[in-house]
Amino acid sequence: MKQGKFITLEGIDGAGKSTQLAWIVELLQRVGIPTVVTREPGGTALGEKLRDMLLDGSLMIYPETEALLMFAARREHLGRVILPALKEGQWVISDRFTDASFAYQGGGRELDAGKLDILEHWVQGDLQPDLTLYFDVPVEVGRQRVSQGGSMDRFEQEQAGFFQRVRAAYLNRAKQFPDRIKLIDSSQSLAEVKAAVERTLQCVLNHG
Amino acid sequence: MKQGKFITLEGIDGAGKSTQLAWIVELLQRVGIPTVVTREPGGTALGEKLRDMLLDGSLMIYPETEALLMFAARREHLGRVILPALKEGQWVISDRFTDASFAYQGGGRELDAGKLDILEHWVQGDLQPDLTLYFDVPVEVGRQRVSQGGSMDRFEQEQAGFFQRVRAAYLNRAKQFPDRIKLIDSSQSLAEVKAAVERTLQCVLNHG
Repeated sequence: MKQGKFITLEGIDGAGKSTQLAWIVELLQRVGIPTVVTREPGGTALGEKLRDMLLDGSLMIYPETEALLMFAARREHLGRVILPALKEGQWVISDRFTDASFAYQGGGRELDAGKLDILEHWVQGDLQPDLTLYFDVPVEVGRQRVSQGGSMDRFEQEQAGFFQRVRAAYLNRAKQFPDRIKLIDSSQSLAEVKAAVERTLQCVLNHG
Repeated sequence: MKQGKFITLEGIDGAGKSTQLAWIVELLQRVGIPTVVTREPGGTALGEKLRDMLLDGSLMIYPETEALLMFAARREHLGRVILPALKEGQWVISDRFTDASFAYQGGGRELDAGKLDILEHWVQGDLQPDLTLYFDVPVEVGRQRVSQGGSMDRFEQEQAGFFQRVRAAYLNRAKQFPDRIKLIDSSQSLAEVKAAVERTLQCVLNHG
């Protein structure tokens, strides 16, 4: 059976990932591709427990610990959800994956990227997503969209400087891996963003 | 201020660590040394939450995930409990530390020791206990003592072969680090074990 594709969505909170995720699933379903939608941190029983810990605003957690927990959840996610689905020919769409560790723990928490490289290789070996859509939006715009929601988690509580570093790290990753990571300007109108997502996906569908 | 000593106790369940831990604290208190008693996994708010997960017999967890969670808990433990106490001149007695990862995840779960070396260095750098007391007991003896207790956790539920591998890994570590790890034959009488612990501690007290 033909292996499925692994697509990850990245971006700061408020970049519109959730809306686009629904649109991507619709696009793939239209061409008859079975999809599995998942998220990080989370996606498994243990991963969701870890997610609750990681987002708990009352817990003190070192950046290194945060990274280890993210990769622990990722190990479960890969083994129990992502790899089995890909093997069965399903496409996996994950709301965040390892680029988020480089952006949030690396950029936001200023953890050395070399230390993250080590964990990435420890957990994933050479596995990488087939395509990563990075939804780029100015921090103020993302923040404004998020603050319209309810109570904020441990990450959402962070100050603007944190998210500036997260965005800079994402932009840096996109520059470092231009073949895999496609930057989508998420400050455009919803229709324009959808069109950009569709164009990018068409490339994968045509060449995959 | 003079830095405290970091002493770790290792051994399979039923090796008598808890009894000896109480005895060690008594010995140190007699000579006026302030001690902090702690344990792994655990020792911090987050660490105890992770401990509950790790011991939960109903959760499926990959060996790699187990190792990442153990080292995540260890990072918190080091930063919030062990290192501050040592700096203040207190002695820290921990019921298990990194040797347990090599024994349980390495030996028991057969995770490659080289992968554990990487995590050890990632989390601890060059930090090692000043002294490790490894309480060695035949697996059958340890198992018998444990099964007299109540319900068994995710590790205690394992079969004898698992604990044989754990013990073999501990013995191997003791051989690899003879200066740091002191083997104590825990199948002796309680009085003999106490005497052996006292002799070993006296060496540290006299040369420390």
